[in-house]
Amino acid sequence: MSRIVPQGVDASTFNKALDELAAVVGKQWVFLDELPLSAYRDAYSPLADGEMLPSAAVAPDGVEQIQKILAVVNAYKIPVWTIGTGRNFAYGGPAPRKSGYVMLDLRRMNRVIEVNEKYGYALVEPGVSYMQLYRHLRQIGSKLWIDPAAPAWGGVIGNALEHGAGYTPYGDHFVMQCGMEVVLADGEIVRTGQGALAGSKHWQVTKHVAGPHFDGMFTQSNFGVVTKMGIWLMPEPPSYKPFMITYQKEEDLEAIFEVTRALKVNQIIPNAAVAVDLLWEASAKTTRRHYYDGKGPLPPSIRAKIAADHDLGMWNYYGALYGPPPVIENNWKVVEDALMSIPGAKVHFDRKNDPAWDYRVRLMRGEPNMTEFSIMNWIGGGGHINFSPISAPSGSEALAQYKLIKQRCNDHGFDYIGEFLVGWRDMHHILMIMYDRADETMRKSAYDLFGLLVDEAAEAGFGEYRTHLAFMDQIARTYKHNDGALWDLHHRLKDVLDPNGILSPGKQGIWPKAMRTSA
Amino acid sequence: MSRIVPQGVDASTFNKALDELAAVVGKQWVFLDELPLSAYRDAYSPLADGEMLPSAAVAPDGVEQIQKILAVVNAYKIPVWTIGTGRNFAYGGPAPRKSGYVMLDLRRMNRVIEVNEKYGYALVEPGVSYMQLYRHLRQIGSKLWIDPAAPAWGGVIGNALEHGAGYTPYGDHFVMQCGMEVVLADGEIVRTGQGALAGSKHWQVTKHVAGPHFDGMFTQSNFGVVTKMGIWLMPEPPSYKPFMITYQKEEDLEAIFEVTRALKVNQIIPNAAVAVDLLWEASAKTTRRHYYDGKGPLPPSIRAKIAADHDLGMWNYYGALYGPPPVIENNWKVVEDALMSIPGAKVHFDRKNDPAWDYRVRLMRGEPNMTEFSIMNWIGGGGHINFSPISAPSGSEALAQYKLIKQRCNDHGFDYIGEFLVGWRDMHHILMIMYDRADETMRKSAYDLFGLLVDEAAEAGFGEYRTHLAFMDQIARTYKHNDGALWDLHHRLKDVLDPNGILSPGKQGIWPKAMRTSA
Ligand SMILES: Cc1cc2nc3c(=O)[nH]c(=O)nc-3n(C[C@H](O)[C@H](O)[C@H](O)COP(=O)(O)OP(=O)(O)OC[C@H]3O[C@@H](n4cnc5c(N)ncnc54)[C@H](O)[C@@H]3O)c2cc1C
Ligand SMILES: Cc1cc2nc3c(=O)[nH]c(=O)nc-3n(C[C@H](O)[C@H](O)[C@H](O)COP(=O)(O)OP(=O)(O)OC[C@H]3O[C@@H](n4cnc5c(N)ncnc54)[C@H](O)[C@@H]3O)c2cc1C
Repeated sequence: MSRIVPQGVDASTFNKALDELAAVVGKQWVFLDELPLSAYRDAYSPLADGEMLPSAAVAPDGVEQIQKILAVVNAYKIPVWTIGTGRNFAYGGPAPRKSGYVMLDLRRMNRVIEVNEKYGYALVEPGVSYMQLYRHLRQIGSKLWIDPAAPAWGGVIGNALEHGAGYTPYGDHFVMQCGMEVVLADGEIVRTGQGALAGSKHWQVTKHVAGPHFDGMFTQSNFGVVTKMGIWLMPEPPSYKPFMITYQKEEDLEAIFEVTRALKVNQIIPNAAVAVDLLWEASAKTTRRHYYDGKGPLPPSIRAKIAADHDLGMWNYYGALYGPPPVIENNWKVVEDALMSIPGAKVHFDRKNDPAWDYRVRLMRGEPNMTEFSIMNWIGGGGHINFSPISAPSGSEALAQYKLIKQRCNDHGFDYIGEFLVGWRDMHHILMIMYDRADETMRKSAYDLFGLLVDEAAEAGFGEYRTHLAFMDQIARTYKHNDGALWDLHHRLKDVLDPNGILSPGKQGIWPKAMRTSA
Repeated sequence: MSRIVPQGVDASTFNKALDELAAVVGKQWVFLDELPLSAYRDAYSPLADGEMLPSAAVAPDGVEQIQKILAVVNAYKIPVWTIGTGRNFAYGGPAPRKSGYVMLDLRRMNRVIEVNEKYGYALVEPGVSYMQLYRHLRQIGSKLWIDPAAPAWGGVIGNALEHGAGYTPYGDHFVMQCGMEVVLADGEIVRTGQGALAGSKHWQVTKHVAGPHFDGMFTQSNFGVVTKMGIWLMPEPPSYKPFMITYQKEEDLEAIFEVTRALKVNQIIPNAAVAVDLLWEASAKTTRRHYYDGKGPLPPSIRAKIAADHDLGMWNYYGALYGPPPVIENNWKVVEDALMSIPGAKVHFDRKNDPAWDYRVRLMRGEPNMTEFSIMNWIGGGGHINFSPISAPSGSEALAQYKLIKQRCNDHGFDYIGEFLVGWRDMHHILMIMYDRADETMRKSAYDLFGLLVDEAAEAGFGEYRTHLAFMDQIARTYKHNDGALWDLHHRLKDVLDPNGILSPGKQGIWPKAMRTSA
């Protein structure tokens, strides 16, 4: 198998660049050969094998090395793809946008620089995963929680830069970041917020600065390399009450969200309330093969059987209450009156031997764990991609959207496997399209389904909050309000901040001028 | 008195520009003569009369007119100063940064475009004041609260762009804005967030966009003219419990903030808890002249008398609890145990005939009112400027800061008049320097005091969250981390987004290249 080199760079130039990189980080932190590079594949890619493969990988141990690396790749205009922990599974994992990029692997920068118990924040480097931060806090006897994404190995920085979300009240990671240090393409180091003030001790206590806020600009973009980030951590509440409510009929979705909206807008349920559909929920404890070995979506009778076997509903609603018991009690009454008013609702506070319940209970109290991963076993050899439209938590809208998307899935021979996350006022709808990578046709129609959904969603006025590498351009094109004025702005800033277009080109469909294809 | 023209523009060119402007908005919306222009003076300016006077003012009625206005002033490189409602008192009011600017007065754009009861948001134009929005909501029978700044005539947009704050749980206005429409210097119109998606119905329900967030960039800056902004509004809580606690000794400040921090970080007190000092509190119901007609700071005996007369403490702590009564009750217990543990603390739930208590009770429940203005009567003919350092709510730090600042005030013959606002994890310290504008020496030493404080605060690692026009440059210079890398970034963006430097030049010390003075 021939070695991959970046597009528009010949092999010899590339090797010289690799040597200079080796000079910066040391030979053993420049990866070239097949085995370690396999760690950067997207094991769940909707594309055929062989696409989005890196040419090499370089792992700096600090800011200086990043500056020198950027100087090198700027000199040779070699695109790099920056990853923190590289677990962006379902959105491309660690894979670069295009084959040939050099991986800028920040995993070695995994210091938890500061944990401040008094103000409840942590300052971390890109390589710090939720699991590591979690352990560190337990080690130092801290009472602060983290807010992990479902996979425990996700990165605190990576996830926040992806506008990732968790299941505690600190679920919106972007909102909870406070202060970041960014290395610009030309190596200049900028600190946002009070970080810009020399010797400031308040970098992580306030986002405010006498001037504009830039943190948002360095998220889901390729304007810089984030080397430090502050994150607010939730102090452990006096007590915690997770609950799960199962709903019998699919149409309950409408009522569910009519009441959820009020509960969220009024902040009765402080964390991301999530309505998990039957199969997503079942896939944590069993496999499809157990119930059905036919093709296509499961017939309703099988669904009913799965529901009966595992005491599940068509929708399995998770939420939690935090705070002093009397407050929890009072809020529970409000929640109960609201959510249990839907006929057939059954509430669960404790489900014996139910791994799905266990991992959610743990997520909602800030305990990272790997269990959500076992849903990958739903279909053997598990490929999957997430379609994540964002919308408002309104009943009728949620139901309409669900029916549309479910209909599309079934047309393409897929089961609908999804969950609705309700943030403060918005609603993430996450569709998990699962396919057996080994099955050619199945992978193809997963791909087509996704594309179709993007367009139909945009038609209906829905945008995704994030997406898989393979669909970033298509999605960028849906943001065409005012002839995509926003993306013009992206490009103008891109050109001025990364004239050589070496920072993660194509991220979110933001390309350097040289790689912009004209219409 | 001769007419003022913009710097570096001769009179005739200016008049042609004025005519073109008149062609855009109509003659009667271009203001030239002395009386209407007096409305743009900073009635409380720390500078002598005659500084920061506009040359003219133009009042567009919509986006198109702004685009055409910008085309005109770009053509003639005439700087404009954008205001929404122009009540930025204590920070320069409506006055421009330098004399000669043309006022871009957006007061006529005062539509409340949409109020959404279901998702609890409003979409407004720059001319909408808190009072107007408040009345509109009452008119339409809405159950949504606003979060007003103390002066009811403040602008919803203006205040948010200033990182302004209020006293309900939705106090941090920047955090509560969701989606904005910006007219760039070249007239291009950009919508942030889902607004960038054509036909999106979720512009105000989510900040998220598949891509970077730009909203922060257009705040406290001069990169564009904000013509629309979404703002989240708090649904009326089941009930509301305001409280005031008076503390006898100044040193109580330390204990106050040790406990407040925990109460805020754990979100027991959801709104901005504020510790108001004796004189700020007294100034709402009486005047200095009543107690003392000597010069310099009031002697302690007079302070004790004021405290006794009006049943006040050296610190007068305001906060409120929201939610169902049982929750309030429970949280009150936590608050009480914490805040009343300080000896001499006296709690008040109801103060008869106490205008200071009344206006705070109203602010904390989202009722705009004018009362805080009567504190201007503390010293007749009231000039004043606010020194607003930002820091962390830690007792020792608050006390040290208070003593330092109080000492400085007294050295300059001023009483310390201030309040400490505690946000989520940060603390705004607002010092109100009051002087009799008619008294030359007093105004001068207010000016010197302010400058001195800026430098000493920066020394100690404190930055201001916002400031008066007169001190924007000085403050910009304090953000010199990494040789002011942040401000380099400001300028690079300024140059690319406003090449002609006509948008509010000097805002926050961000000048167009042409007006940047080399060190
Ligand atoms: C079963 C399953 C469940 C999941 N559940 C969740 C969930 O609950 N919540 C959720 O949010 N996600 C979820 N995900 C998606 C994903 O796994 C996580 O979001 C994960 O945290 C992202 O990967 P990461 O943190 O390692 O980020 P990385 O892969 O490190 O980074 C992600 C991207 O951010 C950019 N980036 C990262 N670091 C830097 C840097 N230092 N500077 C500049 N750019 C950088 C890069 O473009 C990179 O591609 C789930 C996925 C699966 C498969
Ligand atoms: C007694 C007193 C109490 C106060 N209490 C508070 C308080 O509790 N909380 C608080 O936050 N402030 C307070 N203030 C300060 C101030 O009065 C308010 O913040 C007020 O809301 C700001 O003025 P404004 O809303 O009219 O904004 P404007 O004056 O309209 O705008 C302020 C600035 O923002 C920019 N700007 C405004 N509109 C636009 C636009 N459309 N596009 C681009 N730029 C624009 C301009 O540079 C302008 O100078 C107080 C002041 C006094 C005197």
